Amino acid sequence: MAEKIKVGIVGGTGYTGVELLRLLALHPWVDITAITSRGEAGVLVADMFPSLRGYVNLAFSDPAHANLTGCDVVFFATPHGVAMSQAPALVAAGTKVIDLAADFRLQDTAVFEKWYKLPHSCADILRNAVYGIPELYRDKIKSANVIGNPGCYPTTVLLGLTPLLEQGLIDLNVPIIADAKSGVSGAGRKAEVATLFAEASDSMKAYGVAGHRHHPEIYAQLTQLAGSDLAFIFVPHLIPMIRGMFSTIYVKLSDKAQQVNLQAVYGQRYAQERFVDVLPQGGLPETRSVRGSNHLRIALHPQLNGYLTILVVQDNLVKGAAGQAVQNMNIMFDIEEHVGLEVLPLLP
Amino acid sequence: MAEKIKVGIVGGTGYTGVELLRLLALHPWVDITAITSRGEAGVLVADMFPSLRGYVNLAFSDPAHANLTGCDVVFFATPHGVAMSQAPALVAAGTKVIDLAADFRLQDTAVFEKWYKLPHSCADILRNAVYGIPELYRDKIKSANVIGNPGCYPTTVLLGLTPLLEQGLIDLNVPIIADAKSGVSGAGRKAEVATLFAEASDSMKAYGVAGHRHHPEIYAQLTQLAGSDLAFIFVPHLIPMIRGMFSTIYVKLSDKAQQVNLQAVYGQRYAQERFVDVLPQGGLPETRSVRGSNHLRIALHPQLNGYLTILVVQDNLVKGAAGQAVQNMNIMFDIEEHVGLEVLPLLP
Amino acid sequence: MAEKIKVGIVGGTGYTGVELLRLLALHPWVDITAITSRGEAGVLVADMFPSLRGYVNLAFSDPAHANLTGCDVVFFATPHGVAMSQAPALVAAGTKVIDLAADFRLQDTAVFEKWYKLPHSCADILRNAVYGIPELYRDKIKSANVIGNPGCYPTTVLLGLTPLLEQGLIDLNVPIIADAKSGVSGAGRKAEVATLFAEASDSMKAYGVAGHRHHPEIYAQLTQLAGSDLAFIFVPHLIPMIRGMFSTIYVKLSDKAQQVNLQAVYGQRYAQERFVDVLPQGGLPETRSVRGSNHLRIALHPQLNGYLTILVVQDNLVKGAAGQAVQNMNIMFDIEEHVGLEVLPLLP
Amino acid sequence: MAEKIKVGIVGGTGYTGVELLRLLALHPWVDITAITSRGEAGVLVADMFPSLRGYVNLAFSDPAHANLTGCDVVFFATPHGVAMSQAPALVAAGTKVIDLAADFRLQDTAVFEKWYKLPHSCADILRNAVYGIPELYRDKIKSANVIGNPGCYPTTVLLGLTPLLEQGLIDLNVPIIADAKSGVSGAGRKAEVATLFAEASDSMKAYGVAGHRHHPEIYAQLTQLAGSDLAFIFVPHLIPMIRGMFSTIYVKLSDKAQQVNLQAVYGQRYAQERFVDVLPQGGLPETRSVRGSNHLRIALHPQLNGYLTILVVQDNLVKGAAGQAVQNMNIMFDIEEHVGLEVLPLLP
Repeated sequence: MAEKIKVGIVGGTGYTGVELLRLLALHPWVDITAITSRGEAGVLVADMFPSLRGYVNLAFSDPAHANLTGCDVVFFATPHGVAMSQAPALVAAGTKVIDLAADFRLQDTAVFEKWYKLPHSCADILRNAVYGIPELYRDKIKSANVIGNPGCYPTTVLLGLTPLLEQGLIDLNVPIIADAKSGVSGAGRKAEVATLFAEASDSMKAYGVAGHRHHPEIYAQLTQLAGSDLAFIFVPHLIPMIRGMFSTIYVKLSDKAQQVNLQAVYGQRYAQERFVDVLPQGGLPETRSVRGSNHLRIALHPQLNGYLTILVVQDNLVKGAAGQAVQNMNIMFDIEEHVGLEVLPLLP
Repeated sequence: MAEKIKVGIVGGTGYTGVELLRLLALHPWVDITAITSRGEAGVLVADMFPSLRGYVNLAFSDPAHANLTGCDVVFFATPHGVAMSQAPALVAAGTKVIDLAADFRLQDTAVFEKWYKLPHSCADILRNAVYGIPELYRDKIKSANVIGNPGCYPTTVLLGLTPLLEQGLIDLNVPIIADAKSGVSGAGRKAEVATLFAEASDSMKAYGVAGHRHHPEIYAQLTQLAGSDLAFIFVPHLIPMIRGMFSTIYVKLSDKAQQVNLQAVYGQRYAQERFVDVLPQGGLPETRSVRGSNHLRIALHPQLNGYLTILVVQDNLVKGAAGQAVQNMNIMFDIEEHVGLEVLPLLP
Repeated sequence: MAEKIKVGIVGGTGYTGVELLRLLALHPWVDITAITSRGEAGVLVADMFPSLRGYVNLAFSDPAHANLTGCDVVFFATPHGVAMSQAPALVAAGTKVIDLAADFRLQDTAVFEKWYKLPHSCADILRNAVYGIPELYRDKIKSANVIGNPGCYPTTVLLGLTPLLEQGLIDLNVPIIADAKSGVSGAGRKAEVATLFAEASDSMKAYGVAGHRHHPEIYAQLTQLAGSDLAFIFVPHLIPMIRGMFSTIYVKLSDKAQQVNLQAVYGQRYAQERFVDVLPQGGLPETRSVRGSNHLRIALHPQLNGYLTILVVQDNLVKGAAGQAVQNMNIMFDIEEHVGLEVLPLLP
Repeated sequence: MAEKIKVGIVGGTGYTGVELLRLLALHPWVDITAITSRGEAGVLVADMFPSLRGYVNLAFSDPAHANLTGCDVVFFATPHGVAMSQAPALVAAGTKVIDLAADFRLQDTAVFEKWYKLPHSCADILRNAVYGIPELYRDKIKSANVIGNPGCYPTTVLLGLTPLLEQGLIDLNVPIIADAKSGVSGAGRKAEVATLFAEASDSMKAYGVAGHRHHPEIYAQLTQLAGSDLAFIFVPHLIPMIRGMFSTIYVKLSDKAQQVNLQAVYGQRYAQERFVDVLPQGGLPETRSVRGSNHLRIALHPQLNGYLTILVVQDNLVKGAAGQAVQNMNIMFDIEEHVGLEVLPLLP
């Protein structure tokens, strides 16, 4: 490449923001030119996140004065609704947009409005936005102007089920069940009682059982992959760990699946995917095996009565957020997909 | 009562042992007369567990010299196989036995031998042993000589499903799925790499997916409660917390269940049960809400397609082990069931 | 006793509040008649703290309408400044006051105002208030109307040093150093970023090195115990555990101390104290050995050059706050000191 | 460089071993040619440490058959005593040795033998070995054949005190006190009850107060830096976090120090040191700010009576072990010091 990519980050004070900085600060083809925060304008990024001392010398800038249209790409690590308010101007200026919030994940704006309590303000841009799972939509990502970077739970469930759905190996008369578990960083860097150390440590709970925003997102993608309707039950849980996501998925296999080597199906589907690792059958992945890295690991466990349990682990802040966003950026700018993402998991 | 119960504990150096001591040391009707440990004979209990300083003044005694037949009841907090080797002599001497291991949980000795790799040495005593969940078998426990104290996972799954099974409210053509999560103390106080702090902290995993010893135990009880065969899928997970067990159970309701107020069914079934707490519908129990106490909490979440999710929490060392054992002892000796178990959960 | 004590709690929604409830709910001589919270008036206590379901049936009441003067004693588990605004009316009505905040800890109002940024509004009541460490001031507590319940750090440092200071065994030309460590619950149940699980877990830090409010409190008591001025260095640290406080104290012994058996000095000083446990010399107390209990444990470690290291552990929410408050109440109402406090530590 | 360095690792199954692999697997100038383990010979490294799947394709080899003398450098991540048994043959073959255990840290073999209960078998090689803190001994490291890679605690204490000692700014009549705190990974990947999750979580303790092997190591270096004798008190604590080390150091400053800007002294001393970060005065470093990285951060806090508190944080497995070892290797092989160590801390 001739020149570095000029990157802007809107909303760099949350966990996806600092995670983008950790990855992009050492990305050889990236020049971070602006990072904005309304509340922290003027504060040195490294004063808020001392882990970046010596590596990120920028200060947060006021969104009003940041020259984002001068960037090649802007990441939105913001609450829902911010990206869609700024995307039209950026797209018009030829700046690509990668939104880590939900503004460009759901093609059905009515569903978006129901779950996010916001009217969608740029349905036309949404229509051309691409749902950013490289392993599913790599070709579209290449030429996309706007990426809806997937939610953390959806990434695990979709990559966990894709090989089966693509080949019609699930009996869709029986609901697909995803019992999912997330580390607490998934709740974000917001001051809230429920995620205090003294509340969330040495304990666990389910939440959002009656309805979680990732349900419609997963559902929309599952039906698309299946090419038909289906039923999907989703129960997320909060686990006392900082990072890490573990999805335990239960499906009833179709008759067709009885004649298939499922392990081989997964192996072949992901053979060329650097960040998706299919464990040998019966494998027991730990979330720490991907701590800090962009990898996602999958293991298959056949059960009685033609059921299959699929175990999926990822780091919710990397493959489930910032890492996948960088992977999308690499694809959009024709950089090798793993550049800037060669970070080995921290174990122990 | 006229006199205190003379209690012996065999194998007091593990977590169920120290938990028995925590509860029994303040039990007004109990006199702990012996606590044995082959490896630690002569060591003061309070030197090994300083939490008991001033409350337990006994030393561990050599099993060979402990006068266990002089006890009214002996708890076995030992590896599998120990209780059955000593139960015949104790029963002959009129001493009651409460085994916290698996020797008296499975009536089918072939199943026992398959899963525990031990021949069962006293099938006759086993035949008269009672599976010690008071909420299911209180009357039998009253007159039992030998109690097989249930496993931790089984207690959550069985109490979570009993109201449905007793009334035929589950469609047994569809497998019952229990996605269960346990704190690390469930693995016991054994020196093992996998449960080191630096291995098990800030991470999680599934284990025993291909087969866990609690599967046959749960299965045997479920079929008995259902009065028919059924399919049961069980996936346990290890969670980075000391105590606490969370079972997320998925069932397909029967047609009959459509005309029933499930919340009321649970409420009525457990109305007189001091230690089983049915939360209002949609409740989200946290494991810390029972930390250190003998309570078990249940919440119901209806799902799409006639499915129901049941959430169950308990402290694996209390209602899942030592607390339930004391509850059984109280019943056997005609003491009010809550005596010695009035310990409020530690929150935060 | 003839009748139960009528107890009011002001501010029951924080950690010291719920801890008071845990202890008082089972106290045989207590009747909790009111618990107030401006923000949560009308909410059932057990809905906020499900650990209390079935044991505390009260709802939070509006402070404006709670009949606190009808109580025998009122505990203030509130921010600093609340107790002193209400104490005059309560004292006038004959209601005793136990303040778990700092309003009645510092006799010097100028020091109070410097550190707490509040003018002191009832210096006369303060003058008769007693600093509530039973092991130091039991006789005064008996007849006190108002108790300033000590801070958590001060309890450890003062009980750790009392035997030495009372007998002139410290060389006061050399600063006393207290390197103290606290679990995160010490920061309270306030929504703040710094104490989120994802911030405070798997990490540690010092804080308040330039000045912590417990420094003047400890300093005032130390000089009183020593009967002379001295220098005191205090560095608190935040540790990723829910409960627990560990103070490592470094002193230079006086010449007189060379002829004294320090272990015996501590043993004799606390021989009659049920909640202060002196370990054998060289003991290594763990904070979990007092988790959930009102005990405080001390161990002595002689060092080179005539220095001594004193290790002190307590549960910051019990002996460091609510438990000590109940202990004070028992003394004020002539109840045996341990009643309601016979709770064994939770280990593991 | 023309060719890659051929690296061998002896004892790759512990935490320093896997940490070496994490760093070396992506080091552009390193070719890992052998990794040995007596117990795990034949096992794929990535089967034991799934975090390395796809990055380390070696199997553990039997030490008896590994061609270590064919390596350019061999790291010993072994128990004490192993490196000194193999160093003579390696040195004779021209292979450099970096020992992460203690065999080459203490020049006084009598002290070594007292603390490690082993006779020292190669005093001549020890005499030429260099204590591997680059910031102190870079020039000697360049030409060394054998490096005694420092202990984790010593690295923090020595780098925390070097600027003061080099310039005579400490009053050595008063003991230097280091109150040090370590994450549990410091205890290694050994099956032991004391470091089980259920033992070490949600609790803390001091240990080794009566004598810790790092005391003589620190003491020897301190006296050398000071050029005179001194007194050193060291109290290590075990903290419930995986990685991270925090040393709180208390010194009495010399009169000379009163006329000196200490902050500037530290700033200048470490101005050229990429991995030592001096925070602005009053800074409050968190251990997570260096999680996974080779950085060490220092902050100064002046106290009353001419005392100074120095706060030092590092990751015990990186700058405290494997990272420093790689830094030493880079120096020995004339590679830029940061190569392979550009890993940003994982926060959160």
